[in-house]
Amino acid sequence: MKDMLGREEVLSVEDAKGLILKSADFILPHEIEIRIENSLNRILSRDIVSRENLPPFARSTVDGFSVRASDTFGAVETAPAYLNIPHEILMGEEPSFSLTSGEAARISTGGMLPENADAVVMLEHCCTVSEKLIEVLRPAAPGENVIQAGEDCKSGDIILRKGHRLRPQDLGVLAGTGITNVWIYEKPVAAIISTGDEVVPPFGPITTGKIRDINSYVLAGMVETAGGTPVNKGIFPDNYDVLKEVIEDSFKESDLIIISGGSSVGAKDLTAKLINSLGEPGILFHGVSVKPGKPIIYGIANGRPVFGLPGHPAAITVCFELFILPVLRMLTGEKNNLYSRIKKTVRARLSKNISTGSGREEHIRVMLEQRDGGIWAVPVLGKSGLITTLVKADGTIVIPLHKTGLQQGAEVDVELF
Amino acid sequence: MKDMLGREEVLSVEDAKGLILKSADFILPHEIEIRIENSLNRILSRDIVSRENLPPFARSTVDGFSVRASDTFGAVETAPAYLNIPHEILMGEEPSFSLTSGEAARISTGGMLPENADAVVMLEHCCTVSEKLIEVLRPAAPGENVIQAGEDCKSGDIILRKGHRLRPQDLGVLAGTGITNVWIYEKPVAAIISTGDEVVPPFGPITTGKIRDINSYVLAGMVETAGGTPVNKGIFPDNYDVLKEVIEDSFKESDLIIISGGSSVGAKDLTAKLINSLGEPGILFHGVSVKPGKPIIYGIANGRPVFGLPGHPAAITVCFELFILPVLRMLTGEKNNLYSRIKKTVRARLSKNISTGSGREEHIRVMLEQRDGGIWAVPVLGKSGLITTLVKADGTIVIPLHKTGLQQGAEVDVELF
Repeated sequence: MKDMLGREEVLSVEDAKGLILKSADFILPHEIEIRIENSLNRILSRDIVSRENLPPFARSTVDGFSVRASDTFGAVETAPAYLNIPHEILMGEEPSFSLTSGEAARISTGGMLPENADAVVMLEHCCTVSEKLIEVLRPAAPGENVIQAGEDCKSGDIILRKGHRLRPQDLGVLAGTGITNVWIYEKPVAAIISTGDEVVPPFGPITTGKIRDINSYVLAGMVETAGGTPVNKGIFPDNYDVLKEVIEDSFKESDLIIISGGSSVGAKDLTAKLINSLGEPGILFHGVSVKPGKPIIYGIANGRPVFGLPGHPAAITVCFELFILPVLRMLTGEKNNLYSRIKKTVRARLSKNISTGSGREEHIRVMLEQRDGGIWAVPVLGKSGLITTLVKADGTIVIPLHKTGLQQGAEVDVELF
Repeated sequence: MKDMLGREEVLSVEDAKGLILKSADFILPHEIEIRIENSLNRILSRDIVSRENLPPFARSTVDGFSVRASDTFGAVETAPAYLNIPHEILMGEEPSFSLTSGEAARISTGGMLPENADAVVMLEHCCTVSEKLIEVLRPAAPGENVIQAGEDCKSGDIILRKGHRLRPQDLGVLAGTGITNVWIYEKPVAAIISTGDEVVPPFGPITTGKIRDINSYVLAGMVETAGGTPVNKGIFPDNYDVLKEVIEDSFKESDLIIISGGSSVGAKDLTAKLINSLGEPGILFHGVSVKPGKPIIYGIANGRPVFGLPGHPAAITVCFELFILPVLRMLTGEKNNLYSRIKKTVRARLSKNISTGSGREEHIRVMLEQRDGGIWAVPVLGKSGLITTLVKADGTIVIPLHKTGLQQGAEVDVELF
């Protein structure tokens, strides 16, 4: 695309995200059944319907005496209600009696109310006259200090919906309603293909001119954090036939393919050619106005999203957050939960002037420092080919497309890693 | 402790946290060595020292021509510098030549600079005259477009510190410097002991008067989220000898013990007695002015932190966040990283008046709703014995000790689950 002056126009981050959303018609991973003990953070593939009332019976929420509320109406300290205690309620057992008028039964928190009892008076509002007689000093309203049968949920209620990510409290409601297994989506598998004739693994000796693989490990960590399963396919030379075979092999077992490396012009052309050769529609965009990360390629081949990433670590992380993460999330099956996607941010003040004006949305790595009674964001400057700048940083700030920089002291929101 | 009017004074949340911090002299879990592929989010138990320079040699950050910068000084479009191209640099190989004055060598991003080259001119700033001759249209400064050998990190540098939690980019720097294994702390083990004569497991039939275990599952999920390993010890009756045996057995394999259930007066007394009987110093506090969660018990027995929690699910989650989480984090070995502990929050407006005035710090569960161009926090009211209030909620708001409530429309920070 060219602008009015004939310059090559590069897609904005928003437009690129829009193209990704429009293309999002992916096949979700299979569902499997697992025990709830292993289901934390997994995504439900079916609605969950309770088969039991919770609680199954009316329970007391306090230690006290179960009563017929009407027996306590009008009770005050100077004219208490006198109630007989002919029975006892054992914890975890069904009372074998029903209350008649003028009777109460001692009950513990969580105990089951006897028949005809409809309220519980707290211990603190009773006086023991004898082992078999109490004074009630305040009236109890019907239902007071009682959780009714099915008040938490009823048999037949949908307690959790398909697409929900299971949190600790969700495991609680499953256990509480007797559900020990759930159907969830398998984690989406992301194949990570590292290219470059100069790249060697972290293990083994290294000869001059070679560099150890960094990007596959960063990507694998990011995929895992996002709820996917990374599969490191290995390191391959910048060769069309070799890479084509690896990608085709990845289609068999992966939901998403990430090709990392290839910052050089030749490598970028190769990745683009590969994505276009593997099936319709092929490349959807090539190049986005973001710094670092501009040369990113996105396409769909064989129904699978395929990303070609530039080789610099800082570009890898920015491209992942902006473009791969949304795709990976769709593939997890998690339903749009606005709030589960909010990032951890810290408001800080910028420690020095930053001038950008690259005509691209810039993502700047910053360290946080606490001094002068405030939090300061200190830019970690350095070439985007360095990994240690990312290691030193606590998060990033974003300078929008059309800003030319930020002044020292400006308030910024730091997105924490 | 009693106040001036003779009322029982209950410990504030801050004072309770202070007591926990003062008591924190726990033994950290053992360290183990694992492959970096499995180390995401684990905590380093040793400093990591690089044994290699990264990169091992000077590399180009662009596609272009490696040059002796001095050969380009003064070059402009109208009077370019002419350089011969007698050699070629192959990706991943050590150049077999050195540049003499007046020479350049084509280089790709990531390629190794030949001897005597000290800068790279981008392709865009060169014109090809013939296969063996180029024009350079701009001067290059020494070091321009080059990452120097060891610029990312040097052999002998400490790249990551003991106590650091490994993030994706940290795996990258480990791989990049040839480190394939790291020593980390094992996850702290939290034994979860469920008590109550009325509690039965989620599996199997249920008889009237019984209730299925919810709390162990909520707690296990929270322990896992916090980086610990939950061990569900099972459900035990409210019996001193039985519980004493289970706790003593838990000491053998656990770093932290959580006794859940026992909201009734008898059960609370039993838990307190148990903690005091198992070793000095015993109970450090019993009761905190927080709602829900007031009856929480904290002690140290046999060198291990022991918590006794009230039985209501909402109280369990509040007590976990306030008191167990800080202890669990100390036990992970993670060094105080202010920023890794920031919670995800959303600023919202309260949908209705809340009056509290219980004389306790109140934690209120809220749902978030987007309407009228803003985000609203809608209190999920309901007894703290209900689990579905936690399932419906997106997070909590906190009303401080001495406030009596909040008005509709008030701005609140919602801590997201």
